[in-house]
Amino acid sequence: MLFGGIITTKTFCKRTLSAMVRYLGQQEAINIDKDLFNQYKFSVDQLMELAGFSCASAIAKVYPVEKYGQKPILVCCGPGNNGGDGLVCARHLSLFGYKLKVFYPQRTDKQLYHNLVHQAVSSDVVMINREPTLDEVNNEFGLIVDALFGFSFKPPVRPDFKNIMEVLKCVSVPIASIDVPSGWNVEKGMPSEGGISPELLISLTAPKQCAQFFLGKYHYLGGRFVPPKLEQKYKLSLPKYHGTECCVLLK
Amino acid sequence: MLFGGIITTKTFCKRTLSAMVRYLGQQEAINIDKDLFNQYKFSVDQLMELAGFSCASAIAKVYPVEKYGQKPILVCCGPGNNGGDGLVCARHLSLFGYKLKVFYPQRTDKQLYHNLVHQAVSSDVVMINREPTLDEVNNEFGLIVDALFGFSFKPPVRPDFKNIMEVLKCVSVPIASIDVPSGWNVEKGMPSEGGISPELLISLTAPKQCAQFFLGKYHYLGGRFVPPKLEQKYKLSLPKYHGTECCVLLK
Repeated sequence: MLFGGIITTKTFCKRTLSAMVRYLGQQEAINIDKDLFNQYKFSVDQLMELAGFSCASAIAKVYPVEKYGQKPILVCCGPGNNGGDGLVCARHLSLFGYKLKVFYPQRTDKQLYHNLVHQAVSSDVVMINREPTLDEVNNEFGLIVDALFGFSFKPPVRPDFKNIMEVLKCVSVPIASIDVPSGWNVEKGMPSEGGISPELLISLTAPKQCAQFFLGKYHYLGGRFVPPKLEQKYKLSLPKYHGTECCVLLK
Repeated sequence: MLFGGIITTKTFCKRTLSAMVRYLGQQEAINIDKDLFNQYKFSVDQLMELAGFSCASAIAKVYPVEKYGQKPILVCCGPGNNGGDGLVCARHLSLFGYKLKVFYPQRTDKQLYHNLVHQAVSSDVVMINREPTLDEVNNEFGLIVDALFGFSFKPPVRPDFKNIMEVLKCVSVPIASIDVPSGWNVEKGMPSEGGISPELLISLTAPKQCAQFFLGKYHYLGGRFVPPKLEQKYKLSLPKYHGTECCVLLK
């Protein structure tokens, strides 16, 4: 009876949890982003700062600096906002005490992005210009942050990023993906020809549909900035963040 | 001998702590602020978001929502950046689960400030237009956040703010001051004719000299965004933030 009781409670908890989190389609994610900027009047600077900080926090919780601080972290940044989140995340991780290297092959020619690079470098983040090989990544780094492509990604991967994507598919060090595992279909998950397998996924604002196919160990939600009316409009049913935390463990 | 040993250790700890934190003069605080924007290329949006979030975190640690969440918090915002920090702080406190009311009598006519008000209101913060009386503050609110004047304040208090300052001097509910207790001389502390007595002071970036005369219960430092080179240039010797925390208890 006791055992039966536990099962019932577990089943209930599982149902409650799965009922709580809603997974967004690509167009919905794009619409929410537009609403945040146009209707709720947030600036990219503000939300990127909060998003990047929440990613750094989730990473530091899963990979504590005392254990993972010896080897540098490699942050791979793409040309869009996902890459910007990666630059902010790299700066905060550096301030948390990690060693940081950033590979940012196709730099966005906007003032905000120039500033984000400058701020990162000023906080001891090292920008690397040469694409690292698989051996270099496996030997030199303790963790990879994948900030290449986000919720607006549509295949195929551009030629400039094919090599680094191949490296990330084969690495033995853990990968932490920001918002969407890069190269995955935002709704359908890993492409049929294979893709990267992050150990940690940090969904931002709300998880995208691809997160349902995430098989890694840790799934966090970050970006604690969603106005209640926006949450209601899109029926997000976000989980409760604890205390002053800026990220919450979903799995 | 043992007792003597303890005393020695305590004295050493006190010396170490006081040696760690440097208190800034007004001009130094202004120069550091300029460096953050001009040399380190931060935007006001970015730093205000991090500063306001760290204030909200410190407040939530000292006045937990479970105990202080019943009565609303009154945030008094001034016309400058200190008021902007207050608006950001109010929004995050609201997302933490508190009820928020903001008194912002002299609104800054800049897009960022219009947006900050809009964002706060969208996150269930209530803007109040009428100046609350002493009785109203004492009866209605559980906590006051003082975001009237910051490190660039020079006396006298402008006529528009005299009434609210008098109210804050006499309230029986606790006050949390952002960066500088409003009305205090940034270097010399409480003016000779008397001033407000916050229970919590949240210094931002680094404490100002007036914080040495702070007699309240809790002194936090927030604004974990100082680049190491800036810290070295001004010999700030900042205390170590723990883990992913964005504020640290000094006292």
